[in-house]
Amino acid sequence: MPKVAIVGYGLTKFSKEDIEIENVLMNSTRDLFKNSPNLQQKDIDAVLVSTNNNSKYLSAILSEMSGIQPRIAHSIESLCNSGTNSIVSGYSYICSGLVDLVLISGAERYDSPGQVLEWDQLRGEFKHPIFWASIFSKSYKRKYSVTEEDLALVSVKNHKQSKKNPNALPQKSISLEDVLNSKKLTADLRLLDCSRPCTGGASILLASEKVYKNFTDVPVWISGIGQKTTSASFTKNLMFDEMESTKQAATRAFHMSKRSQNDIDVMELHDAFSVCEPMALESLGFASAGKGMELVKEEILCQSSKINPRGGLIGTGHPLGATGIAQTIEIVQQLEHKAEKRQVDNPLTGLVHNMSAGATSSTVLVLER
Amino acid sequence: MPKVAIVGYGLTKFSKEDIEIENVLMNSTRDLFKNSPNLQQKDIDAVLVSTNNNSKYLSAILSEMSGIQPRIAHSIESLCNSGTNSIVSGYSYICSGLVDLVLISGAERYDSPGQVLEWDQLRGEFKHPIFWASIFSKSYKRKYSVTEEDLALVSVKNHKQSKKNPNALPQKSISLEDVLNSKKLTADLRLLDCSRPCTGGASILLASEKVYKNFTDVPVWISGIGQKTTSASFTKNLMFDEMESTKQAATRAFHMSKRSQNDIDVMELHDAFSVCEPMALESLGFASAGKGMELVKEEILCQSSKINPRGGLIGTGHPLGATGIAQTIEIVQQLEHKAEKRQVDNPLTGLVHNMSAGATSSTVLVLER
Repeated sequence: MPKVAIVGYGLTKFSKEDIEIENVLMNSTRDLFKNSPNLQQKDIDAVLVSTNNNSKYLSAILSEMSGIQPRIAHSIESLCNSGTNSIVSGYSYICSGLVDLVLISGAERYDSPGQVLEWDQLRGEFKHPIFWASIFSKSYKRKYSVTEEDLALVSVKNHKQSKKNPNALPQKSISLEDVLNSKKLTADLRLLDCSRPCTGGASILLASEKVYKNFTDVPVWISGIGQKTTSASFTKNLMFDEMESTKQAATRAFHMSKRSQNDIDVMELHDAFSVCEPMALESLGFASAGKGMELVKEEILCQSSKINPRGGLIGTGHPLGATGIAQTIEIVQQLEHKAEKRQVDNPLTGLVHNMSAGATSSTVLVLER
Repeated sequence: MPKVAIVGYGLTKFSKEDIEIENVLMNSTRDLFKNSPNLQQKDIDAVLVSTNNNSKYLSAILSEMSGIQPRIAHSIESLCNSGTNSIVSGYSYICSGLVDLVLISGAERYDSPGQVLEWDQLRGEFKHPIFWASIFSKSYKRKYSVTEEDLALVSVKNHKQSKKNPNALPQKSISLEDVLNSKKLTADLRLLDCSRPCTGGASILLASEKVYKNFTDVPVWISGIGQKTTSASFTKNLMFDEMESTKQAATRAFHMSKRSQNDIDVMELHDAFSVCEPMALESLGFASAGKGMELVKEEILCQSSKINPRGGLIGTGHPLGATGIAQTIEIVQQLEHKAEKRQVDNPLTGLVHNMSAGATSSTVLVLER
């Protein structure tokens, strides 16, 4: 099978600002061009936009504004894992031989319509993500005797890590008490257990084996891909204390990459809510059932930041269509040893976990230097 | 390069009915399953939804409603050529080796938000397609001494052909006088020169070489693909009497398929407005500049229907996200000799032309039995 490399990226600062979606797209694309001195508009064969924004024809608009005349151009939407869906789509366009160089730009505004899923409301209040996250929290805490304090540690850790991330939403340091005293939103979730919607963009450049050398000497390769959609409804999940779609996506991504959990040196997990981090660690196979929090606590004790080094969704902010791309960029920067203050020790292999709608859909990527 | 076959399809009737988008998706998917007796839900690896509808997570919703748990699932949008963009994306997913069987479902409602392009309105009234179509009409008529009566013939022909299409919007026979007496919408366009937005769905099944035999003995192969996006703005078109993106897409599709215009036995063209049919014939290379209408008139004289046999967009209706898929299905049915009353003589090779926003983006597909 042909190989696909990640050879460039750009980010915006995540904020609560009221910026037009076209400008969010442009801002991270402009940053990508700035970071890629050899890149010319005419080299780009495909432009994919990842967003939940209702505006149409955004890939053509971004292309025109950037001076690109791509062959392939369209938008991609799958709620919160739109970003990694776009990366997998770009990967497949290159493998098909139709194109050699793909620009993928994810963008979202703080008021994204993807924050609410208006479908089948009779099933319950799950149109707002906090309700499924609350059931996850209650089930997980009950089954494994995990406490509210335990889960609050995820938020403390990820907020702390995000302070080394210049693109994260700005914030003060957060203590355990801050989390536990923050506003109670549901029986099992407080304000600081939640990632925050925000305005943000992230762009990434994928290249074929034929052209990657024009842009970098040290490419990061996409070696494993796993995706799974089990349903469109949280209530159809088999269990409320594990992520079935993540399990299946991980199995496939590890199989394709011929890697195992032991090979992973750094990872970005989809901590939309604090409970998601230990649950994801378990469903990805890094910890056995109920033992995810032990791994998080170990990380905190060792002052390691191999889990969500950029601060995860909780610390960084969650601009839906940009999130999976920003997660991937973090792992690329880690593997390139360009993560500055966030850099973990000499990583060779990394993992991205991005999901949608109460883990009804998951993407897992394995990346290698 | 691996080969990709089209092995199944389903359609809804095109109508002006107020049907929920989830149901439009389901209705053509159900028809596809009905037409594909060997197809099982578990065989489907990817579900792509083509639409301009603002609802999110529709690929997961369609999957859940259909009993499918796909690996790849997301929506694709590029205004009026969303459908063929989705087919090309499905093609690339199969070529990449990630999947073997892809269900693509296009759907739109009569009130689609994709009918208006809300961007950069200072450039003129081009947010409503009728304004760019009107400039196309004026430029084309002036430059080539084509008359209003000439262009009206496109509408008469395609309405006539649509009467043999059981899925077309219902209508009476249309005479030349009917077109010329229909309401004048702009200086150069009358009501019956325009395709009509409608509610409709179209689903198609793509298969790898490995699995296609499970579903058909006579596959139709996608042998040529060309796509091009030149800008996001009608006013940036180089010329107002030809379609640059269509020219480039056609060159690439013919090159890839190793076919020429002479090999094409039947074609679906994107006649969103009457002037688009002769212009497309020229930009695709079937007629020299200004000679497209001669070809249309020849077709009418010979009572041939190799151009838009199902009635095109003008005769059938134009449910944006479904259109490119419905066009492709027509060519597949023709190549399978299953087009019933619309069947042209023994076609071996066919072409699909689908475009967006004043020909700023075009897709050309070559299909072969």
